Amino acid sequence: MVRWIYRFGDGVADEGGANAAALLGAKGAALAAMARLGLPVPAGFTIGAAATAHHLAHGRFPNGFEAEFDAALGWLEALAAPRPPVLALRPSPERAMPGLEGALLDLGLGDIATRALAQATGDPAFAQDCRRRFLRQFGETVLRLDPADFEERADAFRRGRGLPPAGPLGAEDGGALGALYAALIAEETGTPPPDALGLQLATAIEAALRSWRTPRAIAWRSLTALPDQAAPALVVQTMAFGNLGRRSGAGLVSTRDAETGAKRLAGSFLAAAQGDEIKAGARGAEPLDRLAAAHEAVAAVREGLVAAAGRLEAHFRDAVEFEFTVEDGRLFLLDVRPLARSTRADLAIAVGLAGERIIDRREAVARIDPASLDHLLHPRIDPAAPVDLLARGVPASPGAATGVVAFSAAEAEDLRLAGRKAILVRVETGPEDVHAMHAAAAILTVRGGMTSHAAVIARGMGKPCVAGAGTLRVDARAGTLSAGERTVRRGDTVTLDGGSGAVMVGAVPLSQPELTGAFATLMDWADGIRTLRVRANAETVADANIARAFGAEGIGLCRSEHMFFESGRTGLVRAMILAETVEARREALAALLPLQRADFARLFTVMAGHPVTVRLLDPPLHEFLPRAEEEIAALAGALGMAEDRLRRRLEALAEANPMLGHRGCRLAITFPEIAEMQARAILDAALDAAAETGAAVVPQIMVPLVASRAEFDFVAERVRIVAQAIGRERGAAPHYEIGTMIELPRAALRAGAIAESAAFFSFGTNDLTQTTYGISRDDAAAFLRAYVEEGLMPHDPFATLDHEGVGELVRMAAERGRATRPDLELGICGEHGGDPASIRFCAEIGLDYVSCSPFRVPIARLAAAQAAIAAEARTGEIGRKAAE
Amino acid sequence: MVRWIYRFGDGVADEGGANAAALLGAKGAALAAMARLGLPVPAGFTIGAAATAHHLAHGRFPNGFEAEFDAALGWLEALAAPRPPVLALRPSPERAMPGLEGALLDLGLGDIATRALAQATGDPAFAQDCRRRFLRQFGETVLRLDPADFEERADAFRRGRGLPPAGPLGAEDGGALGALYAALIAEETGTPPPDALGLQLATAIEAALRSWRTPRAIAWRSLTALPDQAAPALVVQTMAFGNLGRRSGAGLVSTRDAETGAKRLAGSFLAAAQGDEIKAGARGAEPLDRLAAAHEAVAAVREGLVAAAGRLEAHFRDAVEFEFTVEDGRLFLLDVRPLARSTRADLAIAVGLAGERIIDRREAVARIDPASLDHLLHPRIDPAAPVDLLARGVPASPGAATGVVAFSAAEAEDLRLAGRKAILVRVETGPEDVHAMHAAAAILTVRGGMTSHAAVIARGMGKPCVAGAGTLRVDARAGTLSAGERTVRRGDTVTLDGGSGAVMVGAVPLSQPELTGAFATLMDWADGIRTLRVRANAETVADANIARAFGAEGIGLCRSEHMFFESGRTGLVRAMILAETVEARREALAALLPLQRADFARLFTVMAGHPVTVRLLDPPLHEFLPRAEEEIAALAGALGMAEDRLRRRLEALAEANPMLGHRGCRLAITFPEIAEMQARAILDAALDAAAETGAAVVPQIMVPLVASRAEFDFVAERVRIVAQAIGRERGAAPHYEIGTMIELPRAALRAGAIAESAAFFSFGTNDLTQTTYGISRDDAAAFLRAYVEEGLMPHDPFATLDHEGVGELVRMAAERGRATRPDLELGICGEHGGDPASIRFCAEIGLDYVSCSPFRVPIARLAAAQAAIAAEARTGEIGRKAAE
Repeated sequence: MVRWIYRFGDGVADEGGANAAALLGAKGAALAAMARLGLPVPAGFTIGAAATAHHLAHGRFPNGFEAEFDAALGWLEALAAPRPPVLALRPSPERAMPGLEGALLDLGLGDIATRALAQATGDPAFAQDCRRRFLRQFGETVLRLDPADFEERADAFRRGRGLPPAGPLGAEDGGALGALYAALIAEETGTPPPDALGLQLATAIEAALRSWRTPRAIAWRSLTALPDQAAPALVVQTMAFGNLGRRSGAGLVSTRDAETGAKRLAGSFLAAAQGDEIKAGARGAEPLDRLAAAHEAVAAVREGLVAAAGRLEAHFRDAVEFEFTVEDGRLFLLDVRPLARSTRADLAIAVGLAGERIIDRREAVARIDPASLDHLLHPRIDPAAPVDLLARGVPASPGAATGVVAFSAAEAEDLRLAGRKAILVRVETGPEDVHAMHAAAAILTVRGGMTSHAAVIARGMGKPCVAGAGTLRVDARAGTLSAGERTVRRGDTVTLDGGSGAVMVGAVPLSQPELTGAFATLMDWADGIRTLRVRANAETVADANIARAFGAEGIGLCRSEHMFFESGRTGLVRAMILAETVEARREALAALLPLQRADFARLFTVMAGHPVTVRLLDPPLHEFLPRAEEEIAALAGALGMAEDRLRRRLEALAEANPMLGHRGCRLAITFPEIAEMQARAILDAALDAAAETGAAVVPQIMVPLVASRAEFDFVAERVRIVAQAIGRERGAAPHYEIGTMIELPRAALRAGAIAESAAFFSFGTNDLTQTTYGISRDDAAAFLRAYVEEGLMPHDPFATLDHEGVGELVRMAAERGRATRPDLELGICGEHGGDPASIRFCAEIGLDYVSCSPFRVPIARLAAAQAAIAAEARTGEIGRKAAE
Repeated sequence: MVRWIYRFGDGVADEGGANAAALLGAKGAALAAMARLGLPVPAGFTIGAAATAHHLAHGRFPNGFEAEFDAALGWLEALAAPRPPVLALRPSPERAMPGLEGALLDLGLGDIATRALAQATGDPAFAQDCRRRFLRQFGETVLRLDPADFEERADAFRRGRGLPPAGPLGAEDGGALGALYAALIAEETGTPPPDALGLQLATAIEAALRSWRTPRAIAWRSLTALPDQAAPALVVQTMAFGNLGRRSGAGLVSTRDAETGAKRLAGSFLAAAQGDEIKAGARGAEPLDRLAAAHEAVAAVREGLVAAAGRLEAHFRDAVEFEFTVEDGRLFLLDVRPLARSTRADLAIAVGLAGERIIDRREAVARIDPASLDHLLHPRIDPAAPVDLLARGVPASPGAATGVVAFSAAEAEDLRLAGRKAILVRVETGPEDVHAMHAAAAILTVRGGMTSHAAVIARGMGKPCVAGAGTLRVDARAGTLSAGERTVRRGDTVTLDGGSGAVMVGAVPLSQPELTGAFATLMDWADGIRTLRVRANAETVADANIARAFGAEGIGLCRSEHMFFESGRTGLVRAMILAETVEARREALAALLPLQRADFARLFTVMAGHPVTVRLLDPPLHEFLPRAEEEIAALAGALGMAEDRLRRRLEALAEANPMLGHRGCRLAITFPEIAEMQARAILDAALDAAAETGAAVVPQIMVPLVASRAEFDFVAERVRIVAQAIGRERGAAPHYEIGTMIELPRAALRAGAIAESAAFFSFGTNDLTQTTYGISRDDAAAFLRAYVEEGLMPHDPFATLDHEGVGELVRMAAERGRATRPDLELGICGEHGGDPASIRFCAEIGLDYVSCSPFRVPIARLAAAQAAIAAEARTGEIGRKAAE
């Protein structure tokens, strides 16, 4: 009966049961699996994690362990005969980790055993080589002696005998140097190295378990998802000798290309080497045929490698890479693991495996990490290109861009009109910079982090952004950007990499995203599986086109105020805000109306046949007003207003907490004429676009920041009156729906009442998170780092929806709203709409769609499909349980 | 069968049923009640509101009305014989309202009826007097003729006949003037005045209903709680002639004193007057004995008045005032209503009625409007004193105070130390002024309203405050306060009335609150009834003493940061905040520790034996830092810090939304050393105070702004470690409880988990309202007015807890918390803790206590008792329903 020790090889493969990976570790489990598949594995056994955990806790192995261990060792001795047993000890944690001791080879080679090995192989020099390897590894790793001491002895020995400083030694020289190593160990530790296999093994096991407890190893485990892994398993295994002559060596084979995912065997090989000398990744792998041509050892086992590759892929149902050793023309497999691969390869492999019917399409879809797609969807720095680094900041929005340095909206706009790309450089950005950000190809700021204005808006726009590059100095007036002694001037070219945070001087070659092939195939499959619809947050025609290209099924959030920042409009918007009578305000609004109508008409034309949700003006009005002294003076002049009077108006409009201030539907209630202008622009544009495209858009007018049904009704009534007037004027009543953002806790609580009037809800989870947590995103940087460090928050609630708190409100609002109005349409338009974990939550609670930045649409499509697969799995499980 | 018309008098009193007040109106219901009591009421009938509503809706009375009306009129004619029927028409709305037409008297006096009346009374001059009264009222009120035209005719007539310009007329002159009035009406309207009673009445009824529809009447109804009252009832009643000779007249009697509540009959009387000429309130009422001595008519009916007063009080179980008319020595009662009274009288009457066993104590407690007590609890301007008004502002915090003008904390403090009262004058206040506000007797600001910083803090301190007196100009440097041409200088005396908003030059005599007598009795009774405990929000010994005097049973909220603003500490606090290392911060904290410890020890000594809840530092640190340029420079000097560097620190600490920023427990998490200092100060002080008083205070340490259990646990663990250290040092482990504010929606949602660690919850409903609604109280003024005007909010959610939204979160948190920990203590410490409607809600959902400003403690005690009474009534009702 297996209790502590699991044998493999020579036709045996003890099962670890359901918890094999945890009990045997990755390497132990891989060896057991290969043994079960009948692949050539050197016989050995795994000391299970249950036994090592006991040892770590109590300082000794559990009762009954010793008998099992002795029996297993006896089995290996018997199998090795007539050779003496020569063993490797390898730690086998569930997941690879740094700081843990590596493999210890050639255990068992005491004096007598070395002679026996020489005799059995007929190669005394080889036997001595193995013995020396054992002594050095044992001395350095187990006894913690200084490697330099061994080097020194070897150098002195070779000098003394007139031998070259490196290269193989003959049997006699080898034996003599081995004796010197043994003497060194005896001197340093006061005891000669142990001769008996049992004692060597016991000492090595103690050392391996000790290394599990090093600070480095503990820190690593606490950083990963495996803090509760109590102990590593240990593999004890018969050596396969890759150093036994010309037809020997050690290598690595991957079943598919790690960069492209193409199906072809490739790898690397080192002749006359022992297994663990080759461990690098699969980069720079050579095709198997080329390896076979170069190495007699590989040629000898070529068929075996091809067969093993096929069997392993079929068994693991994935691309793998495996380690092998050739001992005098005989193939042994030592380890196998999933192939580490690029996102591009990941997609190609999943699609390829499905094409070969190794997995089905649902599994292909389920395997891809949606977040990993982000890298595919933006241009990237060519990894081979040389770069001239100027500074480094926070990688705030992925993608890379090359362009000309611009310090203002006007400069960026001029470059755009001249058909050139601008890199907008600001100390930090605010809402007044949104227009400039639209005009620019990428954004660089000196202050701010992942949640700064620049970062959030840039991610929303899908533009590369490097934020908080604090070593840079910006002088916008002089038009310079400096780091230390180096200065870049207005008009110079720079390149940003928003994925790494690098700011580079000059142009760097970029590789463009490739959205065809396996990517397109997998997306098609995902679309066939998902039930959650995916829309995009977009205001401009450019964004809408990207959204359509990425498969968005409509616009879930068009922030109408973004159009107010378009160039040439700021003056009108400011005149409207600062109007001192309703009449003056109506006049400014009348001038804005045709501009907004044209904006919407263009957007509706692009989205013909799809839903478009337009949010009425949301931000506080002071966000549209200047703050800089000279700008205030200029504005006073433009408006013909006394500067003093303007300053007082600006003061009166300033707010202590703008997030909780005079914004959202509160603007529509105090200035209904603004909402009326917007309603007219939207409804007129919908009729115009329908006439032009023949495919009607039913605009969804969304009222922001509602806390009660009364507020919603107030605004809805104003819109209704405008719609009636348009109906009378044009003889065609505009079709529209009117609904609301649920972005305040009170709106979620009162959802039942609000749904009596609203046709749809869109969860604005950014603001809902801010109000539910009472955290201003703009100010959170000061304490959120401490929260993460102290483990007070499992994740950033602005990145992944907080299921327990904010999520309960979302669920409650969905339930209460649908109880009132069963066909209530439910969506989410916060940034969470592009986050896979949040999308899964949205699917679970039955939302109809998610809306996210255009560049995250493919991620959302994939995440939605995975949510559907997970839901089916759950249902299946429930069904099974019910049937039991 | 009564359908539309309800008779009263001559032994008849038709019941209006359960809705008598709505159906008959106030006057109709009073007349029916008096008739039922057998009191002498001139016979008449009420046209019910059901009939008039039909008329207003359809332009005519309902089917069947006419027959009932004719029968009722016939009945009055028969009763009047041998006199002709002379009637009064009085509108009888449910609640008195302006803009509605008044009574129309003497209807029925055509030529023939006038002669018949002269004959029946033997007084032709009287009959002509009545006829003229009819013609003028009918002309002016019903036909809308110009009163000046009647005046002119009367003046010309008297001049022509050589009569004095006023005074009674003989029968012949009277008849001739009456004929001129009739001619005027005929000239102006083209028709002579109607002669028949039926036609007069019909025309008058139309006019009365028309007046219900005037814009003024409609506006008034929409402002009151009676917007849905469809129509007024109309009373048609036989005239009692107060103008019939020397032994006639009209008067008003109140059963208790309207100012003091003392039991004594008093009133006013006008000889030879018809009823509606006397309608003023009871002010200036004379004792009944004096009236009887002065007027033969009153003497004649004295006994009847005394008997009526007794019967009416017993019936209405309240002090009343009633109208009466004496017709030739015969008493008639015309109306009765509850006595309009001062708060002081209200208390005395309730206690008096209970003493006389007319009502029981519970009813006495239930009758007093808790909010009305506010006026009693502060000094008041002597209403008789002359005042010299300088300006008027918003009455932001009740009470009056006289003192010397001070423009800064230092000036106010100097005055306080000199034993003089300071009136702090600021353009507006911020947290840095709290110390000055503590030192001052009252606060005056030029900017801000009811929810400004000055107003909120002053109300909390119970200090008078006039805010937003916008016509004033303050020059703090020059030490002047000006309004127009007038200037008050530093050191001059002014008086503020926070109840009216008046700012007066010089000292004005004040009357001090009287908290004994009926007030004390009623409070005792309330305490015997309530189950909800009442605590106070207090930080200073002065406030704690007031709280105890007002009956607080502990402190529910001690905002520890207020102590940071005490004079001489600001420097230490700022050094602590701007410390650049943990060591420097600990040094500043070490200097603050003894100061905080002494503060707490003093507070705990006053509150010996009662619970005291201390909230750890809550506001964002930048609130403690200067903003003015010169102050920044001074601080840099004091700290030995480069001004530039300080400015950068200040910038870094500034926040976009401080309400949602780095505050509350977030401070304790990023700077645990602050919380540790505070915990040590609190726990040490509790041990010190217990040793001194012998009555232990168990301090309740309250962690603010918690959103998750993890945050709470983090802070609780720091406090536990401090407590352990103190236990080791002093050999006595301090007893304490640790709990949290529930002031974020997420905390309410996660209350079940938080209660696993927290011993108590205190609902911080100010912040919970801000986050649930997403409304910053500081910024709400810009739109809340529009909300109230548009009827979008039933009441200010910061004044009365929003039951539907915020209230659901409070209820949810209470339920979830108690589900985890059945003995969880639950309280509320937001300003709602002093609002009666909110207190009732707190009682309903089972909170243990409310905590409010010391000056609102009596209000809370009374409101809590009323909540208990209401709950019993509900339980009784449920019991009855269950038994049915």
